Amino acid sequence: MQPNRFLSTVAQCLALTATLAVGAPSFAETDPLPSWNDGPAKQGIVGFVKASTTQGAPTFVPRAERIATFDQDGTLWVEHPMYTQVMYILESVPVLVKAKPELAKVAPYSTVLEILKGGHAAIAKLTMPDLEKLAAATLTGMSTDTFQAEAKAWLAKARDPRWKKPYTELTYLPMQELLRYLRTNGYKTYIVTGGGQDFVRVYSEAVYGIPPEQVVGTAGGTKYGYGKDGKPFLTKEPKLLLNDNDAGKPEGIHLMIGRRPVMAVGNSTGDRQMLEYTNAGSGARLSMLVLHDDADREYAYGPAQGLPDTKVGTFTQAFYDEAQKQGWTVISMKNDWKRIFTFEQ
Amino acid sequence: MQPNRFLSTVAQCLALTATLAVGAPSFAETDPLPSWNDGPAKQGIVGFVKASTTQGAPTFVPRAERIATFDQDGTLWVEHPMYTQVMYILESVPVLVKAKPELAKVAPYSTVLEILKGGHAAIAKLTMPDLEKLAAATLTGMSTDTFQAEAKAWLAKARDPRWKKPYTELTYLPMQELLRYLRTNGYKTYIVTGGGQDFVRVYSEAVYGIPPEQVVGTAGGTKYGYGKDGKPFLTKEPKLLLNDNDAGKPEGIHLMIGRRPVMAVGNSTGDRQMLEYTNAGSGARLSMLVLHDDADREYAYGPAQGLPDTKVGTFTQAFYDEAQKQGWTVISMKNDWKRIFTFEQ
Repeated sequence: MQPNRFLSTVAQCLALTATLAVGAPSFAETDPLPSWNDGPAKQGIVGFVKASTTQGAPTFVPRAERIATFDQDGTLWVEHPMYTQVMYILESVPVLVKAKPELAKVAPYSTVLEILKGGHAAIAKLTMPDLEKLAAATLTGMSTDTFQAEAKAWLAKARDPRWKKPYTELTYLPMQELLRYLRTNGYKTYIVTGGGQDFVRVYSEAVYGIPPEQVVGTAGGTKYGYGKDGKPFLTKEPKLLLNDNDAGKPEGIHLMIGRRPVMAVGNSTGDRQMLEYTNAGSGARLSMLVLHDDADREYAYGPAQGLPDTKVGTFTQAFYDEAQKQGWTVISMKNDWKRIFTFEQ
Repeated sequence: MQPNRFLSTVAQCLALTATLAVGAPSFAETDPLPSWNDGPAKQGIVGFVKASTTQGAPTFVPRAERIATFDQDGTLWVEHPMYTQVMYILESVPVLVKAKPELAKVAPYSTVLEILKGGHAAIAKLTMPDLEKLAAATLTGMSTDTFQAEAKAWLAKARDPRWKKPYTELTYLPMQELLRYLRTNGYKTYIVTGGGQDFVRVYSEAVYGIPPEQVVGTAGGTKYGYGKDGKPFLTKEPKLLLNDNDAGKPEGIHLMIGRRPVMAVGNSTGDRQMLEYTNAGSGARLSMLVLHDDADREYAYGPAQGLPDTKVGTFTQAFYDEAQKQGWTVISMKNDWKRIFTFEQ
């Protein structure tokens, strides 16, 4: 390329980039959220993105500060009848028992073996201390590399009982569109989940386009050591560093990101503090909550709005009222989402 | 712009971007590391970047995995005669004493007031428990927003005793060039420091172009709560979550990044495990250590290579020998750096 021609092309590129950055030349006006029905939720998103990315607007948010945080279970993918990571923990028990057969007769391992035989309804029998014991036994004690490989192998073969599909296909298409739409507009998208950070990081990049370093989750300590070959590795320890639920979400956001998000999305009372913290900043803000009110296409639970009660992803009426009061957008799966899954007809 | 003209410009932009990405059109062949003397360190960097970014090479590293981690004190900026954050802690004591005058007669506060009167030589009098007490008193107990504002105000007015310049100007120009060179080649640059994560995050973006979310450091817990106005905030607690030194560095990298770095740079024995962990991965790797051997332009300390011993940023002979054995590059400030500071003539 001739130097002059080169410079003129560079200038055109810069101009073009600037045009694209400010948005809205006619050729780019395809709907970025085709799986969303027109309504207040969709309009709220589009309005917020315009407000926060329009240079010169009083609501403009500099690119470096465009942080959007998403809860995962029940917000980005299905959490019923049971969190995917709990399924991983339960389905890892037979492997444990194979290595240590004496566990087969000891609770809670024996209870899990029963549950796995007789369907999943008996999960409710497990107490919180049971689950903690099982989590420690299946999620710690091995190297981080071994855990990654085991979780990856399980995700490849495990199937959700209702749809008979890999769990990683049970993500919500409207949320995938929202994540992409935000990234196209200069947002860094984060997962902020009560689930295990190491677990979610195994698939976040492939499933959501969110790299491991943008996953904040419940996290345990690791211990640095050396193998027989002298090679260093990290062992997952049964030591809780961050319980990334409730107040743990803003605390985790401060620890891992160090900036207040501009936008936050959740679906249960465990997301309340993350939304409050996000909303307490100045300028353009968007807080959203997914309401599971579609028993046909997904699940229906609350107990907000008279939906059935649940222990998994509870959305109380008090929390619903709080959302109304604070101006947080409640997304109705039934009304706001045209299509929930990619495999849906 | 006419549609055809637009499309042709887009095509040219794409072609241009592609050319720039593969690198080396003649007009771009300016030296990315002008403050480095030609020598094995500079050649090692350029060779590593080429090896890890040349598509199709067996040493190619996908863009998502290009993580480079840098220690801060003594690696990116001056750490002698004392770490900048320790200066912050000491110089914050008079403010504490003003609020609680009774502290003026209580050690270690009284010791600090003496030190501040009589120059800094008496810093050595402070024991580790003293420093821990002072750190808790000056770095915790306030909201994260208050801490940020206080640290920012101090950084604006504090001056290094030797150069009479803000500490934030005492960064090494060759390292600033290296950070930019890596980012231009698709690397995400991280600080992994024994210093306080919240402290370094106050200035990392302005000083190094490294955003807060890419700073891993010694970190304490925070506690979520509400002000009298009902607004939520986080209080810094005197509870250690991560001691980001020695084995804490790879542990912190796993916690906060979740990927093994491809490149790591440090300057003291506290960086050993980070370099080992980085080096244990497969494919292109680069591990580097800065040796402070230039008493005229900066400082000289080791005790490696017969340099004076020090408690601040110790680089032992055993560590030097280990570096040679492992093939880690030792950067001699004296020989490898043409110019150390931007203000240098």
